[in-house]
Amino acid sequence: MHEKVNLAAKLASLGDHFSPKIVAQFNENKIEVVKARGEFVWHAHPDTDDVFLVLAGRLTIQLRDRAIDLGPGELFVVPRGVEHCPRADGEAHVLLIEPLGTPNTGDAGGERTAQETRI
Amino acid sequence: MHEKVNLAAKLASLGDHFSPKIVAQFNENKIEVVKARGEFVWHAHPDTDDVFLVLAGRLTIQLRDRAIDLGPGELFVVPRGVEHCPRADGEAHVLLIEPLGTPNTGDAGGERTAQETRI
Repeated sequence: MHEKVNLAAKLASLGDHFSPKIVAQFNENKIEVVKARGEFVWHAHPDTDDVFLVLAGRLTIQLRDRAIDLGPGELFVVPRGVEHCPRADGEAHVLLIEPLGTPNTGDAGGERTAQETRI
Repeated sequence: MHEKVNLAAKLASLGDHFSPKIVAQFNENKIEVVKARGEFVWHAHPDTDDVFLVLAGRLTIQLRDRAIDLGPGELFVVPRGVEHCPRADGEAHVLLIEPLGTPNTGDAGGERTAQETRI
């Protein structure tokens, strides 16, 4: 359980885009990695902020009134309740932090909702 | 407040080693960056796990029974209550995540305890 985590190695094992996997936990939070390509779904998390840290590639966090363009080593925290839709024109590798139990699709739900799986 | 954070730019502004600065917050947690060089102090955090993610250089998390060597893109979560002492032989750039209010020196205290400062 308490071993170091190599993020690139975990990412190399991922298949589908926008299907985050848990690589570590701290307190009541999960640290996940995800491959992004294309556009996800518009959603919000009413009860939690949402951390995005880009590890490779470029990710755009679309908000209703602006867009945040992130490259490697850049992070953005989407405040709770704020609608957002991640988009990657190429492939992006991203680290996510949220409380355990937070669905990736937030209040939108639907078929792209991922199970919480630790790898 | 809710702007993107470029971790390398924040790190470039840091002076002292082992003096973490807050670059973002989510929920009740702080995300900090720190430059490490040399050995810190042995300490534990009785009430919280402690996340280390190495961004550049190499960091060793010394535990009482083993040592975790981390390079760029590798993370380790020190479980609550576990004594640890970070050490870097060269300079390492590290991202830290802990609840707001958690002192960097944990239960050890002392002169290397940092104020919580946002940059």
